[in-house]
Amino acid sequence: MAFEITDDFLENLSELIISKDDKALTILFSEVHFADIAEVLDEVTFDEAIYIIKLLDSEKTSEILTELDEDTREKILGSLSAQEIADEVGEMDTDDAADIIGELSEERQKRVINALEDDDLAADIKELLSYDDDTAGALMAKELVKVYETWTVAGCMRRIRGQAKDVTRVHSIYVVDKEDKLVGRLSLKDLIIAKSDQKIADISKDTVDSVNVHEDDEEVAKIMTKYDLEAIPVVDDNNVLLGRITIDDIVDVLKEEADKDYQMAAGLTQDVDSDDSILQLTKARIPWLFLGLVGGVGAFIIMEGFQDVFSKYAALFFFTPLIAAMAGNVGVQSSAIIVQGLANDDVKGSINSRLLKEMLLAALNGVILALFLFFFVWAYEGKIDLALAISASLVVVIIIAGLIGTFVPLFLNKRGIDPAIATGPFITTSNDIFGILIYFMIAKLILGI
Amino acid sequence: MAFEITDDFLENLSELIISKDDKALTILFSEVHFADIAEVLDEVTFDEAIYIIKLLDSEKTSEILTELDEDTREKILGSLSAQEIADEVGEMDTDDAADIIGELSEERQKRVINALEDDDLAADIKELLSYDDDTAGALMAKELVKVYETWTVAGCMRRIRGQAKDVTRVHSIYVVDKEDKLVGRLSLKDLIIAKSDQKIADISKDTVDSVNVHEDDEEVAKIMTKYDLEAIPVVDDNNVLLGRITIDDIVDVLKEEADKDYQMAAGLTQDVDSDDSILQLTKARIPWLFLGLVGGVGAFIIMEGFQDVFSKYAALFFFTPLIAAMAGNVGVQSSAIIVQGLANDDVKGSINSRLLKEMLLAALNGVILALFLFFFVWAYEGKIDLALAISASLVVVIIIAGLIGTFVPLFLNKRGIDPAIATGPFITTSNDIFGILIYFMIAKLILGI
Repeated sequence: MAFEITDDFLENLSELIISKDDKALTILFSEVHFADIAEVLDEVTFDEAIYIIKLLDSEKTSEILTELDEDTREKILGSLSAQEIADEVGEMDTDDAADIIGELSEERQKRVINALEDDDLAADIKELLSYDDDTAGALMAKELVKVYETWTVAGCMRRIRGQAKDVTRVHSIYVVDKEDKLVGRLSLKDLIIAKSDQKIADISKDTVDSVNVHEDDEEVAKIMTKYDLEAIPVVDDNNVLLGRITIDDIVDVLKEEADKDYQMAAGLTQDVDSDDSILQLTKARIPWLFLGLVGGVGAFIIMEGFQDVFSKYAALFFFTPLIAAMAGNVGVQSSAIIVQGLANDDVKGSINSRLLKEMLLAALNGVILALFLFFFVWAYEGKIDLALAISASLVVVIIIAGLIGTFVPLFLNKRGIDPAIATGPFITTSNDIFGILIYFMIAKLILGI
Repeated sequence: MAFEITDDFLENLSELIISKDDKALTILFSEVHFADIAEVLDEVTFDEAIYIIKLLDSEKTSEILTELDEDTREKILGSLSAQEIADEVGEMDTDDAADIIGELSEERQKRVINALEDDDLAADIKELLSYDDDTAGALMAKELVKVYETWTVAGCMRRIRGQAKDVTRVHSIYVVDKEDKLVGRLSLKDLIIAKSDQKIADISKDTVDSVNVHEDDEEVAKIMTKYDLEAIPVVDDNNVLLGRITIDDIVDVLKEEADKDYQMAAGLTQDVDSDDSILQLTKARIPWLFLGLVGGVGAFIIMEGFQDVFSKYAALFFFTPLIAAMAGNVGVQSSAIIVQGLANDDVKGSINSRLLKEMLLAALNGVILALFLFFFVWAYEGKIDLALAISASLVVVIIIAGLIGTFVPLFLNKRGIDPAIATGPFITTSNDIFGILIYFMIAKLILGI
């Protein structure tokens, strides 16, 4: 199972390429899974990658191309002709083919599609490219096994032998009526268990889950996960069978979605990985940092406004990082729970009852933490009124931070905006400012200054 | 496709239960998918849920039980007898059965297993319960289709008709030798396409991916995702076939893992959802908040140590929330990129080169942000030395925050500790303290005080 890219392997590979020992290279890669070869290509130099791609046969390279890192693939495709790309995608499943052609410029897309030998494939790819990103249509493949309800089991077995060759994995056999409308499904297992003279209509299941071709892909992922489906047929508005989506594509959608939420929570504005260039990483990181800077300037202006308090209660100012940190942490915790709950369709009931619950929760947490702080300040500074003022305002700040953290994602979600943007730096920054403002106001009130 | 739980539905349901209209209830639920019924049970009162569970037949309720929320399931199982639970799990796949029995007390586990009618199933469940959590063994099911390499296609078709009935989805047929050691695999499709007098050994694929029963479940998820597998056979140390893991179980592992990382980044110490009780939520939230409190007290002590600077440069103190926020945000961003890279096996190369890259990146970000801050402070306070001191220390703070954010997760990972704990409050708090300390030290140095 375990193939590991070692330095020895890479060195050996470089030497074989330099000496153009194609025979040894072919043998070397013959035992390696294409997903592993893709990883090798991400590691070697560009010229070496091209050498390997041109050496291996297109059945293998087409699989490798689909597995490659997008950056590496872009470079490799850039050095292949339209005809060469057409030969590669000709070997792929239609969904992978459409994804890869979709990454090219419009000009090149046309040339590659024109260079395809198989007209049906060209039509399929054009159709798949026509659907909006992030819809079921963009996710589906055209390959599937389809039978008519009027066929017999024996006839069906004979005919699907032909169809099944093009389909990597047969999950379900879809049953359609004479207008190609989806009416049922059956599994290969049902077919094998059935008697050969039975009618398809008699052994197929009538209830078949399907999704509309324009359905949002995250919604498709939810449906397939909830109902434990390994494949789902895709239909148009008239219920005509168009394609199918398999669970491996859904795994990718789920992973992307989780990565995106995680990155938003961490304050990254776009999909980056640790190997991206410094410029790309800066572009992903600086917007939220800039927001933090603006927030910090806001906090500065607020504190300056209270500076006359300093002569009497300097310690108040030394606790602002604590107040800001607690407001930020509480806000992130509450918003994360709401964002995750919304993603899992777990958040039911009214906004008001949520806010009430969060208020009680924050009050409980706040009082526990404030008690510690109260005794620390009292012991350390020896001023009970200061200790009371700081810990009382901590409780209020925590409650308000929790309410903001709960309300903002719920509000964004109601407005149809992705609530995940409300986590991370957004909530930290706004809570910093509100927290510090409320803190000074309440402390002044309690201390009577 | 879309079943929605409406208030009307729930009201109607309550009325039918009160009037004990079992016939209407059975009809009502006959068209509803078990995953949807599970959601209904999470919504209704406990007595109503029990009423519905006892009413529906065990083929349906066993499926519902596997889909229920863990809390709801625990309550329902608590009111069923060992025999009733045994009847339910008798209908389940072995992996689901073992999961559910595993949630019971040891005492009850024994009674339920003894109450199982099928001795083979009891043995299978005992075996599955014996594997450690988070291993391939704990994830796998015993149901699979197995054929001997010496069989013919026709003989094989005949025999698997029997085996396949117990297996919800046949992904692959596993080929074993006479000692039950895994030697290859074939798909139902291969079998259908083959001629009936061919030997299994001739049509099966020799290379078959498998995982050891003690393999970590996240590793299994990585392998299956990487190689796009929908099922993988599980073997013992002697390569004897023990069970198989299907992609739907992996989807759950991936989801759990993503949720866990997200929660750690948000400062939640355990798996909670928004519907948990206030006490549970407090237990998940207070540890990191307490850490934040300790960090805040640390910042207070540092600032107090610098208080003699106040008379001359009060503004220095008003910028501490800004410094703390920037240190925290940069730390979270860098650690999140590393944590995600580690999770995707994307982080290659030495720690030193990572740190160098992060240093350059943080320096670039820092300089851009510091420029804005410099002009703001200069314009607002009219003191160029103060503006220089604050913005120069911001650059240093950002660089050090980035280095800490990069180093800590890499270090934890090397030590075999989950790097995800280094994100969120952990990095924010440590960066707050370091940031403020460095800030005052550098500002003092530049201002010559």
